[in-house]
Amino acid sequence: MREAYRDQLGQLADQLADMCSMVGDAMSLATRSLLETDLALAEQVIGDDAKVDDARAKAEESAYALLALQAPVATDLRTVLAVIHAAESLERMGDLALHVAKAARRRHPNPVLPEAVKPYFAEMGKVACKMAQQAEQVIRTQDIDLARALDETDDEMDDLHRHLFTVLMDRNWDHGVAAAVDVTLLGRFYERFADHAVSVANRVVFVVTGKMPGYDTDEL
Amino acid sequence: MREAYRDQLGQLADQLADMCSMVGDAMSLATRSLLETDLALAEQVIGDDAKVDDARAKAEESAYALLALQAPVATDLRTVLAVIHAAESLERMGDLALHVAKAARRRHPNPVLPEAVKPYFAEMGKVACKMAQQAEQVIRTQDIDLARALDETDDEMDDLHRHLFTVLMDRNWDHGVAAAVDVTLLGRFYERFADHAVSVANRVVFVVTGKMPGYDTDEL
Repeated sequence: MREAYRDQLGQLADQLADMCSMVGDAMSLATRSLLETDLALAEQVIGDDAKVDDARAKAEESAYALLALQAPVATDLRTVLAVIHAAESLERMGDLALHVAKAARRRHPNPVLPEAVKPYFAEMGKVACKMAQQAEQVIRTQDIDLARALDETDDEMDDLHRHLFTVLMDRNWDHGVAAAVDVTLLGRFYERFADHAVSVANRVVFVVTGKMPGYDTDEL
Repeated sequence: MREAYRDQLGQLADQLADMCSMVGDAMSLATRSLLETDLALAEQVIGDDAKVDDARAKAEESAYALLALQAPVATDLRTVLAVIHAAESLERMGDLALHVAKAARRRHPNPVLPEAVKPYFAEMGKVACKMAQQAEQVIRTQDIDLARALDETDDEMDDLHRHLFTVLMDRNWDHGVAAAVDVTLLGRFYERFADHAVSVANRVVFVVTGKMPGYDTDEL
């Protein structure tokens, strides 16, 4: 039974890692659709979101099956529950990429972003994809140091987000309120995407070390 | 064992229902701090958020203990997992109330909101609290019709949110970009709060009926 459990858990980890790759690709394409005012790319991301939802549903079903058949306890139980939480975060990351693509579609053929803020979004897009890749690596390798590196990448995202707000709040912002509203929401989507990537990595750290980074153990 | 399981599950439902009440109160106070520029209320919400986090941690611990000790299968297993998901949504609702209170604190002694949009936020605050109460009732009564009524209340929130955007996008908006950014984010916090309340209710529906509203059963 232990063997069967390990096999199933390994498959579950693969499913999660694949989801990281899916949502990273989605955010990469969504960012391009935003920067290049590319409707076809936006439509692709919007159409593909159901695949992320399916992948999450399958991961959850696998986790449920594992719980029902193996009735794991202690660390093993927490591992499976960590997977269920991580899958939820990953689905949410897919939703956030979807929101970006929908913004690009909504304003098409006009660009959503004023030229002045495009470099910020190009960079936030890169950082978001890097974080999805890092989360994938953390799941595949269970490398705790790499999980901690995600916090640093998240700091990059927070810096970009803060700078973006400085640009928005500047008296010289002359792109109007509607553009400011779009930029505000889009900035938040990238920032939340990054937060969820950190959360996925932290779940892996928790599985490996038994402690949730950034929380008292009490809080779990 | 069935009896022990029922008892523990009942306690878990009480914990969740109490969390609804906590996050409803938090959003109510946060909204008052926002509308009345009341720093003390904002500080209270900010200070109390840890209690919501603790309640979530305790609910999750109880759920874990139940899984480990009773090893439920089939519907019972799904019920416990639904509780774990609902607790996560409720913690997130607490975070959103916290974000509202932090916005009020950040701009103090200045008001965050231009007078023109205050009525929208007063109304969104009421609807948010109503939804937290409805979610509490759904948990306590397992009343499926009431769970469905939450969807209608959520429509009210969506309408308010849409109208708020109309005001923001109006050419006559003369409160500047900084206020527009604040209003955009705050509007989103209320809308997300409502979404999570619906999600909590849907989990209960799923427990009672075995089907997740708004999803193909495949998607679970």
